[in-house]
Amino acid sequence: MEIAMPESTAAYQPTPRTVPTRARERAAYDRELVHGILDEAYVCHLGFVRDGAPVVLPTLYGRVDERLYVHGSTGSRPLRMTAAGGGTERAAESEAGPGLAVCLTVTLVDGLVLARSAFHHSINYRSVVVHGIARQVTDPEERRTALDAIVDHVVPGRSYDSRPANARELAATAVIRLDLDEVSAKVRTGGPNDDPEDLSLPHWAGVVPLARGYGAPVRSDDLDPAIALPDYLSAL
Amino acid sequence: MEIAMPESTAAYQPTPRTVPTRARERAAYDRELVHGILDEAYVCHLGFVRDGAPVVLPTLYGRVDERLYVHGSTGSRPLRMTAAGGGTERAAESEAGPGLAVCLTVTLVDGLVLARSAFHHSINYRSVVVHGIARQVTDPEERRTALDAIVDHVVPGRSYDSRPANARELAATAVIRLDLDEVSAKVRTGGPNDDPEDLSLPHWAGVVPLARGYGAPVRSDDLDPAIALPDYLSAL
Repeated sequence: MEIAMPESTAAYQPTPRTVPTRARERAAYDRELVHGILDEAYVCHLGFVRDGAPVVLPTLYGRVDERLYVHGSTGSRPLRMTAAGGGTERAAESEAGPGLAVCLTVTLVDGLVLARSAFHHSINYRSVVVHGIARQVTDPEERRTALDAIVDHVVPGRSYDSRPANARELAATAVIRLDLDEVSAKVRTGGPNDDPEDLSLPHWAGVVPLARGYGAPVRSDDLDPAIALPDYLSAL
Repeated sequence: MEIAMPESTAAYQPTPRTVPTRARERAAYDRELVHGILDEAYVCHLGFVRDGAPVVLPTLYGRVDERLYVHGSTGSRPLRMTAAGGGTERAAESEAGPGLAVCLTVTLVDGLVLARSAFHHSINYRSVVVHGIARQVTDPEERRTALDAIVDHVVPGRSYDSRPANARELAATAVIRLDLDEVSAKVRTGGPNDDPEDLSLPHWAGVVPLARGYGAPVRSDDLDPAIALPDYLSAL
């Protein structure tokens, strides 16, 4: 017997920041959809405010249930700002310690949408936008979990087949956490939305699908020839 | 006879915002490199500040020489904010009219970098970060040029093979411009940077190349069967 999940656990609660002003039919709050997009992309774009101006940097990330983790050198700007609680008015001190107001966005491009009209050209995509306060992770166990998640985000299972971070590496690495709380997805699928009066125009219309292509793995020159390609890579 | 370009035109001038605090050897300011990355990606991530907090949205864009263009509904938030000059302290009025402080970032993921150590896992990528004040484009001719560039960014040459925007569509579309002035690229290539003492560990090490894959174009159901696939699509 299947038990229906209550609305509150199956979906994120929309907020004024996560309800778009337009194309509302493309907005979605389903947790499974959001997790799927976050897990499929390799890079997120992390936005924060420095000296009153926006900064958007690409970075690796990892997900553990309803938490996203980003890591970096303890010397990198956003990680220093998170520890110091600097950046914006919203990043006030709280019982959880200082933090940094961020917007973390992930986008997958699925296709080029060619309409008869220039106006209706578009792309098919799936994106997730997360708003919140990033906080530095100090608990040693949570830091290890986060770093494993970031490695496993690059290749699932890889954290079991690599040398874990040592004390020196851990000391040089800052980890920040962003809870999946104020979250929305946006999805466009399907063909072009041409106006009826344009349907007879002599222009090709349709979609060019885009997908990620994996090339043959390239071994490091200095890799022991006895080490075979692991199954988790040949499966890509 | 070849004439060497002076440094000032071949490269963007670094600024405090475009010189990274770490991994400086990965930062680049070469215009040709920057243009190549911008032209190859399909989506940018546009960051701006709303109510003191960062917002990062994926969007299409187009490039014309040293100018980037983004378009959207006149009702969309960043485009309204650009016209109103709202958002941040930096977006002050100037002789060029109001504007919006933005950071526009484009990232291409080229490979997964697997090191023996978890710490040295990484990705190969090429990214461009543009800081500046986005301004609304009002000149009708520049607006047309910008909209063509955005369509041609999806498929080069497509603006010649689609119906141009009509008066109603133009009235519903806002176009903003961001000059390529404060710009940097960041590039990581090559294999993992394992520490010498890790080279004998029994873990596979190397790179899994990633590339964009185009699927077979999917015709719209309502497309006249007499219309063949154009050359610019079969070439993809």
